[in-house]
Amino acid sequence: MENVEKLEYSSESIKNMNERYRAAFINSLSGFKSGNMVGSIDKSSAGSLTNLAIFSSCFHLGASPPLLGLVSRPNATSRHTLDNIEKSGVYTINHINSGIFKKAHQTSARYSKETSEFHATGLTPEYIDNFEAPFVKESNLKIAMKLKQILPIEINQTQMIIGEIVNIIICPLKHNPIDEQTGHIDINKLDSIAISGLDHYHVTKSLGRLSYAKPDRPTKFI
Amino acid sequence: MENVEKLEYSSESIKNMNERYRAAFINSLSGFKSGNMVGSIDKSSAGSLTNLAIFSSCFHLGASPPLLGLVSRPNATSRHTLDNIEKSGVYTINHINSGIFKKAHQTSARYSKETSEFHATGLTPEYIDNFEAPFVKESNLKIAMKLKQILPIEINQTQMIIGEIVNIIICPLKHNPIDEQTGHIDINKLDSIAISGLDHYHVTKSLGRLSYAKPDRPTKFI
Repeated sequence: MENVEKLEYSSESIKNMNERYRAAFINSLSGFKSGNMVGSIDKSSAGSLTNLAIFSSCFHLGASPPLLGLVSRPNATSRHTLDNIEKSGVYTINHINSGIFKKAHQTSARYSKETSEFHATGLTPEYIDNFEAPFVKESNLKIAMKLKQILPIEINQTQMIIGEIVNIIICPLKHNPIDEQTGHIDINKLDSIAISGLDHYHVTKSLGRLSYAKPDRPTKFI
Repeated sequence: MENVEKLEYSSESIKNMNERYRAAFINSLSGFKSGNMVGSIDKSSAGSLTNLAIFSSCFHLGASPPLLGLVSRPNATSRHTLDNIEKSGVYTINHINSGIFKKAHQTSARYSKETSEFHATGLTPEYIDNFEAPFVKESNLKIAMKLKQILPIEINQTQMIIGEIVNIIICPLKHNPIDEQTGHIDINKLDSIAISGLDHYHVTKSLGRLSYAKPDRPTKFI
């Protein structure tokens, strides 16, 4: 196999893959993915049951208003999160770092609805005033979200959860990650990880930042 | 600043940022993003004009059918790509690697509609039989896409481009990146890059793959 120069896959060959193989294969294709845990809460449950779930599908939707999207799959694990968000209208998004990626991965196990993944994995719920949903104390970048819209994607029965960023907490700061000139946050300095496929975790190494591209000049490093 | 232990930002402080600062800041929050170039073609133009645009918003939407999503911003650069996809119904998604990330970034400059970003940046269009849209020869993972749906996100006037994967080309192969047991593709071996914020490029280093998570056992490396 090491001497093959090119691999090619048609629609037909994708269709013929077995289901789990195809899931891993197709999940690898979009490129590197964000690694976050979504915290939510079920207030109707006795004692307010917290929920925590790993998502590799968090994506930037817009800066003004500040919006993030999440893809919710039609399965049991996703469903608990979606139910809580629908009922409470709030949730948190917490960056995964290299110190907690194993615990973050473990939140994807199919725990019963009565089990809090915080408790099961040993991560610590943390709260701020006037906001119901739990953050992950061990995360270095935490975002409080307010639900704006749940958009059904009919073509494959997924749901797009669209929320507005209402609070951001960045800590602890060994090195200030904010470039005060441009607003860029260097998430390398926060030890945030990237995900590929279903189960592959990565740290990153900066190649550099590039200047705003203009047609009449070559791009250069900032 | 190096001694601050925590930074916190409210809705109000986000609203008060100037527009470019906020764009860079909010774009950094979702975590690492995929780095792809979208190839498309305008057949109505004399000589069939190709277009190439960098997107950091390509995301996995589902494996069966195999679907990828792209967020198209309401601006001129995105618009050329969207117009072409709407008319032709096909496009390509091409992973950016560390050898071409500067050229990929340069495709975001506001070239006139008559300029092909392939020509302007020195990347090479490549074709396969029975598929109109151009691939990027220098990319190591190339995906042929068929448009399924353009979903308007009314809350911020963006468009979600949803397409089905109809062909995949992986090359060149110094090391076979496919785990034949599971279907996982090791995109580290393809030298694919990750993006953060508006302009920050990264290579990755694997922390490892983790086993399928189950409630009754701790996760372990595969």
